[in-house]
Amino acid sequence: MRKILAIDAGGTSSRAVLLDMTGACGGFGRAGAGNPTAVGIASAVDALGLAVERALGGAASPSAADSFVVVALAGAATPPFLSLLEARLTHLGLHGNIVIEPDLLGTFSSGTSGQHGYAMIAGTGAIAARVSDGRIHTVRGGTGWLLGDTGSGFWIGQQIARAVVASLDGLGPSTALTPLLLKATGIERTGALRRGRSEELSQLMQELYSLRPVELARFAPLAFEAGEHGDVESGTAQDVVASDILEVAASGIARVLAAAVESDAERDVEPDVEPDVDGCVVLGGSVLAAGLARAPDIFLHRLRAAAGGSELVMVQDGVVGAAVLALRHLGREVDVEFHRRLTREVDRVRSPAVCE
Amino acid sequence: MRKILAIDAGGTSSRAVLLDMTGACGGFGRAGAGNPTAVGIASAVDALGLAVERALGGAASPSAADSFVVVALAGAATPPFLSLLEARLTHLGLHGNIVIEPDLLGTFSSGTSGQHGYAMIAGTGAIAARVSDGRIHTVRGGTGWLLGDTGSGFWIGQQIARAVVASLDGLGPSTALTPLLLKATGIERTGALRRGRSEELSQLMQELYSLRPVELARFAPLAFEAGEHGDVESGTAQDVVASDILEVAASGIARVLAAAVESDAERDVEPDVEPDVDGCVVLGGSVLAAGLARAPDIFLHRLRAAAGGSELVMVQDGVVGAAVLALRHLGREVDVEFHRRLTREVDRVRSPAVCE
Repeated sequence: MRKILAIDAGGTSSRAVLLDMTGACGGFGRAGAGNPTAVGIASAVDALGLAVERALGGAASPSAADSFVVVALAGAATPPFLSLLEARLTHLGLHGNIVIEPDLLGTFSSGTSGQHGYAMIAGTGAIAARVSDGRIHTVRGGTGWLLGDTGSGFWIGQQIARAVVASLDGLGPSTALTPLLLKATGIERTGALRRGRSEELSQLMQELYSLRPVELARFAPLAFEAGEHGDVESGTAQDVVASDILEVAASGIARVLAAAVESDAERDVEPDVEPDVDGCVVLGGSVLAAGLARAPDIFLHRLRAAAGGSELVMVQDGVVGAAVLALRHLGREVDVEFHRRLTREVDRVRSPAVCE
Repeated sequence: MRKILAIDAGGTSSRAVLLDMTGACGGFGRAGAGNPTAVGIASAVDALGLAVERALGGAASPSAADSFVVVALAGAATPPFLSLLEARLTHLGLHGNIVIEPDLLGTFSSGTSGQHGYAMIAGTGAIAARVSDGRIHTVRGGTGWLLGDTGSGFWIGQQIARAVVASLDGLGPSTALTPLLLKATGIERTGALRRGRSEELSQLMQELYSLRPVELARFAPLAFEAGEHGDVESGTAQDVVASDILEVAASGIARVLAAAVESDAERDVEPDVEPDVDGCVVLGGSVLAAGLARAPDIFLHRLRAAAGGSELVMVQDGVVGAAVLALRHLGREVDVEFHRRLTREVDRVRSPAVCE
């Protein structure tokens, strides 16, 4: 039987599922970041290879097997990346076609069997798209850490770092983020001063400037933590600095989504495109997941307003969508009922008891 | 006669002046960035060597000369930098002592003969200090492009880039900064679309991500240009986006200055420090120069409020201050009258007709 591998290659982690044409899943695997633009080609291929190996479990065979692989990829599929990925998959006994799809389409197809609507991912970056006839039609956001992506994981992490640095430097208010960030970077508070500045400030600067800028994204969860638990030192119920960061983040993310939704207005100059009034908005990525779960009062109403009446669907990742795309490439029709069954099936093999 | 060289090594350019113990100046030289932390050791030493060579003019001699060199330095004076600088100066016939002083002290001593007060530099970065007994006592700001320095040249340049990217991406308002930045980066407006986004946006992103982040500082002057001339396309008198950037920049800079001034409040725990009620605030750096000259309605009242009643003095650079520090190191007393004469003397040799 033909081996179908559906892979979701994200900026933080990657997932692979093994399935057949009936949508029955035979294995699931997780590994690290699979975005070649963010982590480099070799590192991304290592992660994707590992996820596939885990999904294949004992099913890997050195003999040639008829296979079909779809990768829903964050980042650019350059020729060197594709060559290296093909070599790695061949090594795992997979000799068939490899099809690369945008990660936004994997996310979209994880949330709906529809072919029209919107997808938004807010993880390390923040990007949204209008999906039309099953393809990405218009993209908004995703302009990267230096030039855009307000509200992304990098942006939140940087705002946390800037707020703590300002506070230690006497330029900003006290915040519950300070002890959280110092703990996360392993710096002890000594209270010592040098030229009237805290020793911790020098240490923190040294620590944070030694990272690649985008790595500041790893501190984004602290904003939700401080937002929930407040400032123990000052005894307030909620940390204002952290809440402010999350408010601006939610607004920035909502603005990108709104721009993708509003791009429909351009349709009157594209008469060949059908209106898709019933398309839903599929949301993915770690910041949106944390935002809706841990700070719904900040995120939900902004996203609803941006969606302009369309239904919001949050997905865990894009692996179900990658499977949908694979089956459609092979001629299988995926309707609402089949999509529901496939999602349940992926959830079954995804559970740690079965695959890890 | 002993050769005294006073050097101001800044992040954008460097200056050197040749003088004697009477304060008479024999030559002046300019060259590129002399901040070894920002541009690298070799490049910084090249610039400083060139500035000195130009200041010496025909006065350089291969024979050993008794010399004394003071460098008011932006960035860190690491041992490798000092070795390389010493070798370069020896090569230029200067065999005496080299003393490194903080650039903030050079700026301060350019503006006053006093020994107490405050200095602030807003150029590529933004940093302020309290000066006490002729030494830097407390530093605020200067935490760098990623973690602080709101209002610095980098910060303004990045805000310009983000505003233009947002505008081209349909996420932000139209702004006069767009044609200015596209012109500055050599990108033509074609109006062509790809996935519903302008071709210019892709080209601009490619162009800006190819720079080192701090190089975005080079676009800071566009904010003043747009603020002055407004948005020709929309016909408004002043560009709101550019004005907003400058308002936040001025507030950020003023906050750093205010924190340095407020650090005086810590003095009650330092009984050995005399209050310096009559110290002035000396301002330097390209952003403060442009702010006070081209957007005084935005900058002046904020800086006045931050200075808390102290007099504001804007200086062109720190080269007069470096000369003051050199003469004081050699035992010369520098009072108000001598300082005034020295400033005139440096201005005389500084004029292009005399030295370049």
